Amino acid sequence: MKVTLSALDTYETSFTPLVVIELAQDVKEETKEWLKNRIIAKKKDGGAQLLFRPLLNKHEKETLGSDNLYLVGASRVRLLLGAEALGLVKESVDGTMRTFTYSTRGSFRGFHDDNDDFLTMTECQFIVKHELENLRARDEKMIPGYPQAKLYPGKSLLRRLLTSGIVVQVFPLHDREALKKLEDSWYTRFSLHCQPIDRIRGYFGETVALYFGFLEYFTFALIPMAVIGLPYYLFVWEDYDKYVVFASFNLLWSTVILEVWKRSCADMTYRWGTLLMKRQFEEPRPGFHGVLGVNPVTGREEPLYPSYKRQLRIYLVSLPFVCLCLCLSLHIMMIYFDLEDWALRVHEESSTEWTGVLLYVPSVIYAIVIEIMNRLYRYAAEFLTAWENHRLESAYQNHLVLKVLVFNFLNCFASLFYIAFVLKDMKLLGQSLATLLITSQIINQIAESLLPYWLQKKHSVKVKRKVQALKVDIDATFYEQVVLEKEMSTYLGTFDDYLELFLQFGYVSLFSCVYPLAAAFAVLNNFTEVNSDALKMCRVFKRPFSEPSASIGVWQLAFETMSVIAVVTNCALIGMSPQVNAVFPDSKTELVLIVVVVEHVLLALKFILAFAIPDKPRHIQMKLARLEFESLEALKQQFQMCKKW
Amino acid sequence: MKVTLSALDTYETSFTPLVVIELAQDVKEETKEWLKNRIIAKKKDGGAQLLFRPLLNKHEKETLGSDNLYLVGASRVRLLLGAEALGLVKESVDGTMRTFTYSTRGSFRGFHDDNDDFLTMTECQFIVKHELENLRARDEKMIPGYPQAKLYPGKSLLRRLLTSGIVVQVFPLHDREALKKLEDSWYTRFSLHCQPIDRIRGYFGETVALYFGFLEYFTFALIPMAVIGLPYYLFVWEDYDKYVVFASFNLLWSTVILEVWKRSCADMTYRWGTLLMKRQFEEPRPGFHGVLGVNPVTGREEPLYPSYKRQLRIYLVSLPFVCLCLCLSLHIMMIYFDLEDWALRVHEESSTEWTGVLLYVPSVIYAIVIEIMNRLYRYAAEFLTAWENHRLESAYQNHLVLKVLVFNFLNCFASLFYIAFVLKDMKLLGQSLATLLITSQIINQIAESLLPYWLQKKHSVKVKRKVQALKVDIDATFYEQVVLEKEMSTYLGTFDDYLELFLQFGYVSLFSCVYPLAAAFAVLNNFTEVNSDALKMCRVFKRPFSEPSASIGVWQLAFETMSVIAVVTNCALIGMSPQVNAVFPDSKTELVLIVVVVEHVLLALKFILAFAIPDKPRHIQMKLARLEFESLEALKQQFQMCKKW
Repeated sequence: MKVTLSALDTYETSFTPLVVIELAQDVKEETKEWLKNRIIAKKKDGGAQLLFRPLLNKHEKETLGSDNLYLVGASRVRLLLGAEALGLVKESVDGTMRTFTYSTRGSFRGFHDDNDDFLTMTECQFIVKHELENLRARDEKMIPGYPQAKLYPGKSLLRRLLTSGIVVQVFPLHDREALKKLEDSWYTRFSLHCQPIDRIRGYFGETVALYFGFLEYFTFALIPMAVIGLPYYLFVWEDYDKYVVFASFNLLWSTVILEVWKRSCADMTYRWGTLLMKRQFEEPRPGFHGVLGVNPVTGREEPLYPSYKRQLRIYLVSLPFVCLCLCLSLHIMMIYFDLEDWALRVHEESSTEWTGVLLYVPSVIYAIVIEIMNRLYRYAAEFLTAWENHRLESAYQNHLVLKVLVFNFLNCFASLFYIAFVLKDMKLLGQSLATLLITSQIINQIAESLLPYWLQKKHSVKVKRKVQALKVDIDATFYEQVVLEKEMSTYLGTFDDYLELFLQFGYVSLFSCVYPLAAAFAVLNNFTEVNSDALKMCRVFKRPFSEPSASIGVWQLAFETMSVIAVVTNCALIGMSPQVNAVFPDSKTELVLIVVVVEHVLLALKFILAFAIPDKPRHIQMKLARLEFESLEALKQQFQMCKKW
Repeated sequence: MKVTLSALDTYETSFTPLVVIELAQDVKEETKEWLKNRIIAKKKDGGAQLLFRPLLNKHEKETLGSDNLYLVGASRVRLLLGAEALGLVKESVDGTMRTFTYSTRGSFRGFHDDNDDFLTMTECQFIVKHELENLRARDEKMIPGYPQAKLYPGKSLLRRLLTSGIVVQVFPLHDREALKKLEDSWYTRFSLHCQPIDRIRGYFGETVALYFGFLEYFTFALIPMAVIGLPYYLFVWEDYDKYVVFASFNLLWSTVILEVWKRSCADMTYRWGTLLMKRQFEEPRPGFHGVLGVNPVTGREEPLYPSYKRQLRIYLVSLPFVCLCLCLSLHIMMIYFDLEDWALRVHEESSTEWTGVLLYVPSVIYAIVIEIMNRLYRYAAEFLTAWENHRLESAYQNHLVLKVLVFNFLNCFASLFYIAFVLKDMKLLGQSLATLLITSQIINQIAESLLPYWLQKKHSVKVKRKVQALKVDIDATFYEQVVLEKEMSTYLGTFDDYLELFLQFGYVSLFSCVYPLAAAFAVLNNFTEVNSDALKMCRVFKRPFSEPSASIGVWQLAFETMSVIAVVTNCALIGMSPQVNAVFPDSKTELVLIVVVVEHVLLALKFILAFAIPDKPRHIQMKLARLEFESLEALKQQFQMCKKW
């Protein structure tokens, strides 16, 4: 290996800013100097060996007055070595995916020694972020200038700087040109084509691309349900056998689409290299705190928090709180039914046009209240889960997802279950379902994308005016870009987007045989959702750091659970329908038994289907087997070579 | 590393025979010479570098006349290097489990350079077997002397020798002394203690030890069910609520024991090192045949068999055959019910003592017929699955297990389901269940262990007489041992043993609320089963080659599926019981609905329980996390070192 880290000593020739670090306004010079030295110090001296410079040079600083923004970049060789350290997987010239190593760099597709495109900007930013986070304390006991910001050997400096407020934020820069191109191929031109998933992945990383991939896949998968559902609504087909056919189709279809998604997901993530990427060892999450002790796994000194204390917090505080929220939600549901009753009475007493509209008012109000409660509960759940003090980000996420899913499920669907199985009013059920589905979709699109976009636009005009007012002799466009992006809100991950899809899937599948139009509405919504979400990603939020991921994770399980619940509810609904009851006028018991048997058969079929459809397509399986075989052969070779020494 | 394979050149000083190779009687001298040379040739010349010698020396050969038995051994260093090649996992001096490497041998517990006990005899035999199987053809086109036994580069010689009948069998030798010790601590002395699982594992390997571990665990786990069931039988408690309590307890208990088993299994296999052992690349199974082609995974030339042909065989032949067998089984079941009717009529017409006994005769005959059909079907299933020509042993096993489980399940339980849900005769159900359970247990114990043991004993006396009659001047005991073991039948794996337990679990759990005594009978049977199975392993069969395994594999899934079916049947039985029906005299529908709701709640609880109980105990999780952390750290170190060069 010829080029090594020592070759990085020559200072940068061309500096491409990748990541911005914003310090607090009043950070001491001493701290700034120390941070800079740690970032540019060589790897062997415990530094990150990155490039670092202020956004403004001395002259500009005097004019503009603020100097709390810093740019981080890295030389090309440094980035390639970082890619190796991260275990990035790239396509080699023979078409297979292989873990990148610097020494074998020549064997990867698209690599030339004078080519800067081998790593995408997103990957470079991810590498820089990883290197910054892995900049660890050595013998420092505290951050210079801030005695209260304690350090211990091995503590990530960036995390401590963030928790003690010295660093306000770290974010990657947008690439204006690439973003424009991406937008053009994505959503600005209305035409019938699939999303450019690979380009989205290139710009935003795998997690975001997988969300958009899933959204698109899910939308197309709903089309058959929507198409088959339409005539049921239009021609008011209400025969027993037609409904059974529709519901059975829906249930098996929803199983099949979830299984097939796993396969196309494996296809995509293999192409992106994340399917093969080894999991990194998980560090404690930023907010985790505890008493210093020796971690039995790593042998390092780090904060420890006894598991029983966490369990106590979960079972004595979080669990009762969640139950209380569930009760509150049910209470509000009962108020809604009172309102509904009242509206009906008013309408019956004096039937005018106005009272006809009034009939829909309670549902709409309830739908809005549900959305508000979901959002409030979300904050509470985040606060509680953070307070539970989980050590790992994955544990935190799991507890948060569980809390939020249980509540949102009940909050959104309790009224529908109540109407279906207690009131047994199928007409009200269809009407309620439609109102809830449509209202929540409209609220979501407005609250998620359009409103923030409008606010963002207003703000951006303000900033532009401010910068232009300065009329200084500097490269204003770049300065303007950084200042603008600094003020944008941060994208908090795909959680809310998946949650929305999850609830939509619930509306579509749980009561599909009562309101066959639900799928059609969902399809319509999702076509606009793609565009509003794309707008949100490109224009409203800061560019997020890419996160490699090989699947949609816990959401796959959530969707599968929902489709199991859907089998149960649909069977029950069909069993309760008057048409079916008319077929068995004498023996209700026989009817119930038949419905139960059908339900069990469907459930068994579902599990067998899920088991029989392989999770990975055959060609991916072959490629994975080939890689495994090669690595075993390589090990054997190595072993033989060692013996020969 | 000082000692290498070249140090093995010095011929053996002490030869410990590990494995016996039996050739056919008429093998040509040329072939014998070639085989010998390939086995003792050095690794770098493509040999196995093992020790190899005939059982009889020249002088003895002339006296006894036969020379088709050969002994294989290996030098100590060879075995240690073989252990490294296999990736055996051993306990190191600091108490953690680590993959053994020859260069770090000093860091493992119990290793001294003059100590032969570090590898158990079982491990040595496993290593020898692995080395023999990996002895591959290089440029030979055929086996010398046998032009019809074709070879191609990379083909395992031993497998070709076995399939062309030149090698009759390869088997490991018993260690008389160790076996005696094992027997003493295992089953010969009747006392109340657990089985010496670790010693069983040391002698027979992990797969067999896991079976005995599971058998013991399962027996103890059944004790609470047996104890709680006894008073129900003794005091004829037939109240509705008591039955519900009993059945609910059984259902949740069976979920819990299966989950807890996973944990104790992880505990054991961690201690044995197999939990951490990397999977070896799976070679084609011995019986696999096809047209020579290039395997897309390995790039090697080997026989290929198109997947569509296999699918055709499965769907056009195997599937119809299985269905036919199922129909036949149902037909025989109907004959049994006719017989049962006839016996009842005879008894009613002329009730004497004899006709009272006659009532039990049909059940007993049917139980015997079921056992016979199970065994016949087993042969057919093995033949068919072999004919389907699966490339991998694991695929073969999965298809065999699926075929056998489906048939055995129906064959054993169809009559019980028929009695329960069609005839609705709970008294007959209990009686039938008892007869089936007890008869099958008796037949199994006799057919599996006692009869073969008796035959083996007779045969061994004959061989002993023969050897003594020779009165030759040789070490007769060792010769006698080899000749005796050569004639013993081969242990075909744990399949039948697990199958027996699986069916027993079915009898106990499916109808537990009708016949609470089932668990007690199962416990009684299993206490003797431990002993008869142990006798079988030690005295009746050839010593098996050990097989490393980390869990009971597909059987865990089979038992879990059975426990799901048990929830459904038990709920249905309780719903049908006259006591419960008496509580809801007016509304059968309400009763059915309540039962269905309870069933769904139990099933949901079951899945939540299975999800909530972690599969590995916390201390094993910690140890695994520690190992993962260390290997990641080692990789990082290696990476840093490479950079420094």
